[in-house]
Amino acid sequence: MKPLSKRIAEIHPSMTVEIDTLAKRLSTEGRSIWSLAVGEPNFDTPLHIKEAAINSVNKGLTRYTAPSGMQSFKDTVCEKFLKENKLTYSSEQIVATSGAKHAVFNAISAIVDEGDEVLIPTPCWGTYTELVRYCGGAPVFMECSIDDNFRLKAEQISKAITPKTKAIILNSPCNPTGVTYSKTELEAMAKVIAKNNLYCIADEIYEHLVYTKEPQVSIAALPDMQERTVVVNGFSKTYCMTGWRIGYLAAPLAIAKEIAKMQGQTTHHPSNISQYGAIAALNGPFDSVLEMKQEFAERMHRMSETLESIENIRFPKPEGAFYLFVDVSAYYGKKTANGTQISNSIDFCKALLDEHGVVIVPGIAFCLDSCVRFSFTASLPTISVAMPKFKEFVEGMA
Amino acid sequence: MKPLSKRIAEIHPSMTVEIDTLAKRLSTEGRSIWSLAVGEPNFDTPLHIKEAAINSVNKGLTRYTAPSGMQSFKDTVCEKFLKENKLTYSSEQIVATSGAKHAVFNAISAIVDEGDEVLIPTPCWGTYTELVRYCGGAPVFMECSIDDNFRLKAEQISKAITPKTKAIILNSPCNPTGVTYSKTELEAMAKVIAKNNLYCIADEIYEHLVYTKEPQVSIAALPDMQERTVVVNGFSKTYCMTGWRIGYLAAPLAIAKEIAKMQGQTTHHPSNISQYGAIAALNGPFDSVLEMKQEFAERMHRMSETLESIENIRFPKPEGAFYLFVDVSAYYGKKTANGTQISNSIDFCKALLDEHGVVIVPGIAFCLDSCVRFSFTASLPTISVAMPKFKEFVEGMA
Repeated sequence: MKPLSKRIAEIHPSMTVEIDTLAKRLSTEGRSIWSLAVGEPNFDTPLHIKEAAINSVNKGLTRYTAPSGMQSFKDTVCEKFLKENKLTYSSEQIVATSGAKHAVFNAISAIVDEGDEVLIPTPCWGTYTELVRYCGGAPVFMECSIDDNFRLKAEQISKAITPKTKAIILNSPCNPTGVTYSKTELEAMAKVIAKNNLYCIADEIYEHLVYTKEPQVSIAALPDMQERTVVVNGFSKTYCMTGWRIGYLAAPLAIAKEIAKMQGQTTHHPSNISQYGAIAALNGPFDSVLEMKQEFAERMHRMSETLESIENIRFPKPEGAFYLFVDVSAYYGKKTANGTQISNSIDFCKALLDEHGVVIVPGIAFCLDSCVRFSFTASLPTISVAMPKFKEFVEGMA
Repeated sequence: MKPLSKRIAEIHPSMTVEIDTLAKRLSTEGRSIWSLAVGEPNFDTPLHIKEAAINSVNKGLTRYTAPSGMQSFKDTVCEKFLKENKLTYSSEQIVATSGAKHAVFNAISAIVDEGDEVLIPTPCWGTYTELVRYCGGAPVFMECSIDDNFRLKAEQISKAITPKTKAIILNSPCNPTGVTYSKTELEAMAKVIAKNNLYCIADEIYEHLVYTKEPQVSIAALPDMQERTVVVNGFSKTYCMTGWRIGYLAAPLAIAKEIAKMQGQTTHHPSNISQYGAIAALNGPFDSVLEMKQEFAERMHRMSETLESIENIRFPKPEGAFYLFVDVSAYYGKKTANGTQISNSIDFCKALLDEHGVVIVPGIAFCLDSCVRFSFTASLPTISVAMPKFKEFVEGMA
């Protein structure tokens, strides 16, 4: 057969998705698996959201709508931006997407051309890199060191800019590091971004999962930023709606129109049922989110305790999201209790899964091989079994 | 601001979607609108499908699954292919998509590279053309004449092939013409396609909406075709699930794997709730589909009666799908009763909407400006008001 398209051949699979799929398969095959891998809350979707979705099915509200989503969905998202982010958008600037990942894909497709450079602070979610490449762009990495608690500095942006730079992708709170930028930090970045006339894709999916008291700010709300920023957000993480595949973006009108046009030809609008659920999520009580956040904080504390009790392991305390990004490279070059040689983050995670049934994600999936990612979306009982196993695994190395 | 990506700037909006959105807006604004424009059955999703979806929400079955969809969804689709099309697929060859449009997008993305030629018989669904261009390919049109009842002949494929030809897109039953190919016709095409080592994208979304007694055949079931064909199908049309956004594709393993990988980075799996509904659709009773088809046949008959009573109008009787594709070009060059000059299919449809509130789709959206498309997905009461208005409009021209 003739070769398939180069574009698709060059894309790498999502490592977090692959690991989750592997863990689920091993589990169905009867192996005892404790997964701290996937960024998916272990809570059920709140009842009022489920009821709204069921109601829409019962009423038969399941017809085609505009490619950018239902008017009521877009209006509700506008209200959210005004209330929570002090950002004024018209409904034409909102596009409902089949999850936040889809919103990132749409935004990159709209902005990035063959040969464009896109700045990405690392460690980062691997999908950004793959999508920039898929659209013919070149990701340019700004490496953030664990010595700086993985924080990007505005000077790093200035240094990375070339005449080819078209955009920057920011993710605050950050997957995998948990870094959450303050208004002052964002202001410094925004100045450089605006001065150099870059587009900004601001992935704010973890917006409500913050464990500090500092008020959250969207970079789009800073001077000269709204007209160059595509804000990406979604319902999977905050409202436990992963499988519903519903997210959204807010963009300058010209970009939103192009994306709506593209959706009309590529996927059309996301499922109406999920849109009705999402409207209820934004309009409904917020208690379940606050309870979940409290539970996450407790889990983070428990996991941190175990990790802190292990020698030669380093990690910054997460300020947001639900991950711990942990430097385990002091153990590279050693052998496990079973005699497996560990040279990198993939070896490390594979051996941990093989020997103890514990699943975490290799740092290489986030462009930093010295680390591994733990998610605190798993239950306390799972954590209380998995973490001692992890400790046993590491301390058994020689 | 810097220019947006060329790829997105060059894509044209979906004209059928635009017209449907316009008609819905005019209707909300209080205008009396009779729409025969959109390819969306006016029936509710069957009850057993709605119940299965509701059940999945109540059970909290709303977590991430593999990017290619749930195992049970893929297994059910395999059973469908075996039972209905005598095609054996493994579940790894199936990808659940966010609607059939999304399946077409994925298939074209996987196959088409910069500079590749893709053969498309016209009249055709405009999305094919746009997606081929979006992926850097060149659509090569094989024009089918109304004198041949819009049927493609195998010789046309032979003549259109060049060293750059990578694939062909076939759509049987066809939107907008209703042409439905027999096994003998497909065999003749398959020989040319296989001999020239082309990929084939077979859009079979209207598979169950056929008004002849000839048994339906998938081109993938013909010799040497399964290994080069991506079969696209979905639930929107047959099961009245348009807003659910759920479809699928079946492909050679190498292509299915690439597409699953791409979905893992661009959209992830379609909504689980829609997948549960779709499983119930494939496993459930088929009565509602047969009843709907009978109703469609009646509507087609009624609309044809009016059209046949108008001078200088031509159309082939549809064998499948739910459209009438009607040559109205004898009226181009004339003026409407209100004095509007009609020069092409867009003028024609605009004036019809302005003067009578009846919505149909310009043939230019399907690459044939001499025609307009009527959909018989609207109710008999709508048809019985709209068709006389159409007749009045045409007969008022001078």
